[in-house]
Amino acid sequence: MGRPVLLLLLLPLLAPGAAPAVHPASRALGRLHLPTKPTPRHTVVKNYSVRYFHQKVNHFGFSDTKTFKQRYLIADRHWKKDGGSILFYTGNEGDIVWFSNNTGFMWDVAEELSAMLVFAEHRYYGKSLPFGNNSFKDAKHLNFLTSEQALVDFVELIKHLKRTIPGAENQPVIAIGGSYGGMLAAWLRMKYPHIVVGALAASAPIWQFEDLVPCGMFMKIVTADFKKSGPNCSESIRKSWDAINRLAGSGSGLLWLTEAFHLCSPLTSEDVEHLKEWIAETWVNLAMVNYPYECNFLQPLPAWPIKEVCQYFKEPDTSESQLVENVFQALNIYYNYTGQTKCLNISETTTSNLGTLGWGYQSCTEMVMPFCTNGIEDMFEPQSWDFKKFSNECYKQWGVRPRPSWIGTVYGGKHISSHTNIVFSNGNLDPWSGGGVTKNISDTLVAIFIKDAAHHLDLRANHAQDPESVLQARLWEVSYMKQWIREFHRAARRQR
Amino acid sequence: MGRPVLLLLLLPLLAPGAAPAVHPASRALGRLHLPTKPTPRHTVVKNYSVRYFHQKVNHFGFSDTKTFKQRYLIADRHWKKDGGSILFYTGNEGDIVWFSNNTGFMWDVAEELSAMLVFAEHRYYGKSLPFGNNSFKDAKHLNFLTSEQALVDFVELIKHLKRTIPGAENQPVIAIGGSYGGMLAAWLRMKYPHIVVGALAASAPIWQFEDLVPCGMFMKIVTADFKKSGPNCSESIRKSWDAINRLAGSGSGLLWLTEAFHLCSPLTSEDVEHLKEWIAETWVNLAMVNYPYECNFLQPLPAWPIKEVCQYFKEPDTSESQLVENVFQALNIYYNYTGQTKCLNISETTTSNLGTLGWGYQSCTEMVMPFCTNGIEDMFEPQSWDFKKFSNECYKQWGVRPRPSWIGTVYGGKHISSHTNIVFSNGNLDPWSGGGVTKNISDTLVAIFIKDAAHHLDLRANHAQDPESVLQARLWEVSYMKQWIREFHRAARRQR
Repeated sequence: MGRPVLLLLLLPLLAPGAAPAVHPASRALGRLHLPTKPTPRHTVVKNYSVRYFHQKVNHFGFSDTKTFKQRYLIADRHWKKDGGSILFYTGNEGDIVWFSNNTGFMWDVAEELSAMLVFAEHRYYGKSLPFGNNSFKDAKHLNFLTSEQALVDFVELIKHLKRTIPGAENQPVIAIGGSYGGMLAAWLRMKYPHIVVGALAASAPIWQFEDLVPCGMFMKIVTADFKKSGPNCSESIRKSWDAINRLAGSGSGLLWLTEAFHLCSPLTSEDVEHLKEWIAETWVNLAMVNYPYECNFLQPLPAWPIKEVCQYFKEPDTSESQLVENVFQALNIYYNYTGQTKCLNISETTTSNLGTLGWGYQSCTEMVMPFCTNGIEDMFEPQSWDFKKFSNECYKQWGVRPRPSWIGTVYGGKHISSHTNIVFSNGNLDPWSGGGVTKNISDTLVAIFIKDAAHHLDLRANHAQDPESVLQARLWEVSYMKQWIREFHRAARRQR
Repeated sequence: MGRPVLLLLLLPLLAPGAAPAVHPASRALGRLHLPTKPTPRHTVVKNYSVRYFHQKVNHFGFSDTKTFKQRYLIADRHWKKDGGSILFYTGNEGDIVWFSNNTGFMWDVAEELSAMLVFAEHRYYGKSLPFGNNSFKDAKHLNFLTSEQALVDFVELIKHLKRTIPGAENQPVIAIGGSYGGMLAAWLRMKYPHIVVGALAASAPIWQFEDLVPCGMFMKIVTADFKKSGPNCSESIRKSWDAINRLAGSGSGLLWLTEAFHLCSPLTSEDVEHLKEWIAETWVNLAMVNYPYECNFLQPLPAWPIKEVCQYFKEPDTSESQLVENVFQALNIYYNYTGQTKCLNISETTTSNLGTLGWGYQSCTEMVMPFCTNGIEDMFEPQSWDFKKFSNECYKQWGVRPRPSWIGTVYGGKHISSHTNIVFSNGNLDPWSGGGVTKNISDTLVAIFIKDAAHHLDLRANHAQDPESVLQARLWEVSYMKQWIREFHRAARRQR
């Protein structure tokens, strides 16, 4: 049978330090956002106020009037009451402060657009917990964690800001988001075009659902990133799974693997699938953050980290044990670039700023993203997409069943051409670009495909080592935003 | 203090025979749809199958998987598998068979458009009750009665039809609805443009919310209908309230009123407000169904019924008692055109095909329509819009509070210009036209304003006495629908 379908976790759902095992269902889902921190070199001052807004827990019913406090950040240093604009970050699955720190683009363009910056936290993440510590207690408490509710949170917050901040009322609002936040930005424009004049949806895989794109696309792109980063790189990784499997077949082999990988806890035969998931996740993470400059995220990483990793996979013919030792060296780039790490913990791959529980639930309800591998077009062990199994595991963990066609039903799948004013940006190195919009749909639904860019590099702060392509992409993005702003004012003048 | 704010009920919320008093809150709200039955002369055969589709009670959450059976009617006599289309009636607050019988327009144009006709019942009405007899039990059971849930019902049903009816998959669907159903048709296109290629929204007062239109507009139009239907007509009605008030001030006056109005039960001083509400409602109903031909609805009515009513109000100077007797004669046109009615029942003004309870709840939650009168620009007793009082009464009756700004938040209020392919039709005689779209918004959001037409006359079957204006309106409507269908096929060809 090979690995369970749930191997295909993309970013881990275990917070660092969260020792207890998480049910595999929560691991299947693909963490969209990236654990990156701004480079220390960056000099734009990020001064903001932290505020809270009372949101209804359930926007779509009237019997329950409970509210919760949604956190948002607001920065108005460059904002102009007259002729200014509002850039609204549609928060995704994590702490909004962390997203704000990792969306330097907005800070960089604030002055040029005389923009107020608003970063709105997504319900059930960070400090925006509808039921406090009970928010993840059971399916009943989680019932209001949906993209539809989150979009209304954004709408209500924007209306509140316009109502309460003198000067804001007659200003255009632009939605900006990356990854799942990019999906939300696009959907906000699609569903509430009276609220935002346009959306910049960076690395937003709005088509990573149902059969809109082949399920193998994602891992194929991961593989391509490794393939182009060094000779024999992806081939060696492809071979490594068998080597691990064979070594894990005996007690002495398990011991050897524990030592070879410098694991913090001894590997048991039950852990082997988990070990391979963790390694696969690491390759995926590297593909997403394969940035052109040294960058401090989960752990510090060098520029073009996959190139560094591939240094260890040059040799075509190595023994199995040597290959496994090379895998360790490669992992070490990701987990121990500073040399401070004493041992590797297979329960950790990403930052605690991401809300692993929340995203686990979302993946088991709305955000059903099919992934698969065949071991031929990709460097992973073959794994088909088994929805039934996935659904059963979701039910076991959360007491809910996923609705795989729901997102398409609500947001239109590939039939979105009647919408307007959305820029979809994607990097060619980003595995999520496979589920993104990479070709223009119309004059006002445009795609920007960025060479040499990983997961929403364009949303990060300007950096001296940014490739030309991303500089150009940011110029286009600003130019579209200016156009939407101009159109807004033109329409407003006509109405006067 | 005068009459309570809740006088401004437009169509009654008491089903005939439903003796127990309904709380006034339920009467405030404006029944949108009209109690009319097709004229017997009409000859288009209305053959349909009755079907049921399992819908989730809650589309917007995952913890509860309950379903209910939504009823729909389907007629495919003229449908062509190749090159045909689907006309989808977005059911409103009542029995879908009754709406189907009163939407002759769809039956009339089916052949020309090679169209399958589908009439979908709105949840909580007719036979589409999410919790059977318990559906109206309390706020918890009513919690899923919202326009957002109803729209998703329509979307899921259309997807189901396309999946299961061979040939339907690649056909364009057009939403059609009248009154609240017209609002739903427009909103369906706005929110789910990937599901319907366009919408015909007949007499849809999508702006009868908040302060989008003056609250007095509705009753002003009712008054204008009476004013233009005979000399002294609206003036006499304006005077009649004082006459009733004065007569109701004494026991003998109450007795006299009971006899003058031929009431089934003796009038008490507590009933007087109710009596005046009932009379006002009758004038409103007459304004809505002021059709150019004899027509059998609640009770049979003559052609241009307001003209008939105004026959009794010609004299400028009559005594108060004579005026009240004239009011009775006028009411008699509405309640006793056939001469079979023995006495008048002030708890009845409309057909039992409308779902009074459901609409009462909807008006107390989403469908908050402010109405007011000033007795100067209209012929009613002055009554301001008192939201607080209204809200308290809703809370008393249903345990919920209305959200007056919600519909604007969700559907955009007057900021809808980014949407496309909606025809808004309105009749100049229809009081609901005051809250409708009566001017073009863009090339593809167009208004058709129909002279000499009351509430969605254009959706009724062709009739020999239809005015030119409505014939022309129907031609335009068909022409827009054909254009949407052509565009759909053109886009489909491009994708191939």
